[in-house]
Amino acid sequence: MTETASRPTLEAVAARAGVSRATVSRVVNGSEGVREPLVERVRRAVEELGYVPNQAARSLVTRRHDAVAVVIAEPETRVFADPFFALQLRGISKELTAHDSQLVLLLTEGREDYARVGRYLAGGHVDGALVFSLHLDDPLPGLIRGAGVPTVFGGRPGWQDGTRSAEPATPTVYVDSDNRGGARDAVRHLVGLGRVRVAHIAGPLDQTSAVDRLDGFRDVMVDADPRLIAEGDFTPAGGERAMRELLDRCPDLDAVFAANDLAASGALRVLRERGRRVPEDVAVIGFDDMLPVAEQTDPPLTTVRQDIEEMGRLMARLLLRGLERRGREDAVEDIAGAPPSSVVLPTTLVRRASA
Amino acid sequence: MTETASRPTLEAVAARAGVSRATVSRVVNGSEGVREPLVERVRRAVEELGYVPNQAARSLVTRRHDAVAVVIAEPETRVFADPFFALQLRGISKELTAHDSQLVLLLTEGREDYARVGRYLAGGHVDGALVFSLHLDDPLPGLIRGAGVPTVFGGRPGWQDGTRSAEPATPTVYVDSDNRGGARDAVRHLVGLGRVRVAHIAGPLDQTSAVDRLDGFRDVMVDADPRLIAEGDFTPAGGERAMRELLDRCPDLDAVFAANDLAASGALRVLRERGRRVPEDVAVIGFDDMLPVAEQTDPPLTTVRQDIEEMGRLMARLLLRGLERRGREDAVEDIAGAPPSSVVLPTTLVRRASA
Repeated sequence: MTETASRPTLEAVAARAGVSRATVSRVVNGSEGVREPLVERVRRAVEELGYVPNQAARSLVTRRHDAVAVVIAEPETRVFADPFFALQLRGISKELTAHDSQLVLLLTEGREDYARVGRYLAGGHVDGALVFSLHLDDPLPGLIRGAGVPTVFGGRPGWQDGTRSAEPATPTVYVDSDNRGGARDAVRHLVGLGRVRVAHIAGPLDQTSAVDRLDGFRDVMVDADPRLIAEGDFTPAGGERAMRELLDRCPDLDAVFAANDLAASGALRVLRERGRRVPEDVAVIGFDDMLPVAEQTDPPLTTVRQDIEEMGRLMARLLLRGLERRGREDAVEDIAGAPPSSVVLPTTLVRRASA
Repeated sequence: MTETASRPTLEAVAARAGVSRATVSRVVNGSEGVREPLVERVRRAVEELGYVPNQAARSLVTRRHDAVAVVIAEPETRVFADPFFALQLRGISKELTAHDSQLVLLLTEGREDYARVGRYLAGGHVDGALVFSLHLDDPLPGLIRGAGVPTVFGGRPGWQDGTRSAEPATPTVYVDSDNRGGARDAVRHLVGLGRVRVAHIAGPLDQTSAVDRLDGFRDVMVDADPRLIAEGDFTPAGGERAMRELLDRCPDLDAVFAANDLAASGALRVLRERGRRVPEDVAVIGFDDMLPVAEQTDPPLTTVRQDIEEMGRLMARLLLRGLERRGREDAVEDIAGAPPSSVVLPTTLVRRASA
């Protein structure tokens, strides 16, 4: 173990300064009511001893930790395998760093660890939380509610549209992309190319982003043959499996809209394996514009671009603004301005060779 | 903001139970000396109100958070780009989860954020820290010392061999691979193949792992032409740059030992670009046996295997064992057993097609 047995204590500072423990505590926590000569003596003792105030104690007073937790509702293996999360974290990290707030990423092996995450969030270690990749029936929102930490979600949470009935005064705040609109654009583009048997590789349908993209697909393909829809899981392997199913069921399909680029990359591999030319025989569109994936597929992928890094940055910005507002509310009640509200970012179709 | 205005307080519990605040506090913190009927009343009130004790307050008493910080001395972009870190985190995550301890990954944009990391570590939010990828003159060890948290390092820290002179009683504990021995095996293998102009693409020489691998190279190539050594940075792009330098300086080289697989993958690309056949013209060996990288290079990579996930697991295990020991020392002084000490894991040469 690497540690100092000799980390200076509050008592040592009090002894050095010749004042009481309570006086040191008041000075360290910035309280009023200590005479200037005493303040000076305490400050000198703090400096001489290299005393670091115990922030667990101090944060009981100030209630600020300058730290924000990030919770991704996926096992850590998935967090590191899918570049989507790295991009979102990049935006979050930049924004938190600009405000000198520490990014605290809480990793788990799976759902059975969420109670522990809830305890950490309730433990007074962070000012707020950024939570993303929630699934239907996810225990996390309930645990976060119990922990009582201000939270901004990445992606519209599944429980309902916008607010939780129990607490109308504290609406759920989230940042999302226009998943449904983006999906519509993709499928309209395929139809515009003259494709008539358009298939969809959906994401996991316990996530709102996957449901919204499927809804966008159905908005355009109103009477879609249900055999033209297969559920994937946002991974390349899931895209391969779904593409095989679709080809087996509907060998005459002439287009595929995949719910994300990783699934599309798997679909492209299977199409090549089965001797289908892209885009001549089957046109393919993904979602995300995840680089370098979308540029390095063969052929390069036409896809729906969402600004993932910007989503992360916005989540952090909304949370910090909310925390600041709370601080101001404590001080002067009526200058706090409007509370942060949810943001849905637009998407754009990026044309490459696959459709 | 998503939060509960109505999180029940200690005061509310005291009022409901008809006891003092101090009594509630003693019961919640498991202190002795409260009469059983009162304990029962407090417990019932806690349950009825759904009171969650403030762990910041409680941890002042128990000094346990069931959480361990992981600090990687690299910007977050690098953490997510290099699969080495994901593997080490996988081992750490598995081990911590098995002990119901929360993995708290503290991400940064760079060195200028380390003071903030130090504040978080000092803030009483974690029981200990796992720190890896330290660089020479890294401010982190000093900040960690100041924070006073038990720490295990991944990779031998650079400041000296094993102990810090100021605190002989608390030796530095680290987990490392036999970098020098592994490098010797690789270079001996190249020499055994009859190669005489063996080059080395080093890692960043402000890290002990890179220095040790270079030393291993020199152990075998005692009179190596200094032009046969180029410094990389453990990335594919760095490997490409170094390989170009080496070919420009020594077009007659017939083998390359790269300090890691990612650098070797870059070197292979440049060799192909310059029309050198591997292994016929130039034999190539990497370090790590990072999968799938080492298997997917063209040709597949001969490399020195180190068990990265196991290193992570061991780091976590040593830290938890040390924390447990400290707990027991507080109770009974002489049953604590030997303190954890550093571990250096063996490496093995894995032969594929490149050498």
